[in-house]
Amino acid sequence: MYTPGLHIIADFKEVNGEPLTDLTGFKLLLHQLLAQHQLQLIGEVHHRFEGGGYTSNLCLTESHISMHTWPEYGIATFDVFLSNYQFDNNAKTKSIYESVKNWLKTEHINYHEIYR
Amino acid sequence: MYTPGLHIIADFKEVNGEPLTDLTGFKLLLHQLLAQHQLQLIGEVHHRFEGGGYTSNLCLTESHISMHTWPEYGIATFDVFLSNYQFDNNAKTKSIYESVKNWLKTEHINYHEIYR
Repeated sequence: MYTPGLHIIADFKEVNGEPLTDLTGFKLLLHQLLAQHQLQLIGEVHHRFEGGGYTSNLCLTESHISMHTWPEYGIATFDVFLSNYQFDNNAKTKSIYESVKNWLKTEHINYHEIYR
Repeated sequence: MYTPGLHIIADFKEVNGEPLTDLTGFKLLLHQLLAQHQLQLIGEVHHRFEGGGYTSNLCLTESHISMHTWPEYGIATFDVFLSNYQFDNNAKTKSIYESVKNWLKTEHINYHEIYR
């Protein structure tokens, strides 16, 4: 049976400083990662909240990437789900997660790998 | 500590017929659910694939909803994540999941509830 692919769900806690309000930097990072991993963007929605947090949703032919931040609590939730329809993208999924984790500069996380 | 909220991840297998290609019907269902539950849409991205499948990503102030379908395999993957920033939305998250499950008319699922 076909299995769509790997979905990584990570909740980052105790994130300090700029990344939780830096929507411009996050968009730049994501677009660099899409180019690096040759992923195809269908469309994207970004929004800044009054408190400084942001939400970013990227719709890809390979599925989706989402980020939501709460700077008032030092929290970010991140999802990356890439399907394996044409290629095995599991390594790309893990690499994108690592890049976002490094950009957030934190080690405090709840982490789930779900093979869908 | 603030905890963002409930994320339901469901993979539907052995889905028959129209729902996996009925992007118009899915958009209508989702917009009805957003109105019913008084959720705020920021933006949405939808795409039809050549094989008849579709992908839908809705970005909400409360987080996001995503659907990806593979009619050639009878599979759909669905996510709904609503944060509890202003209200406890966990009951809405579960209700939206049930509505989508009923619309897909299947009982064959992998199901995860992640309290983020």
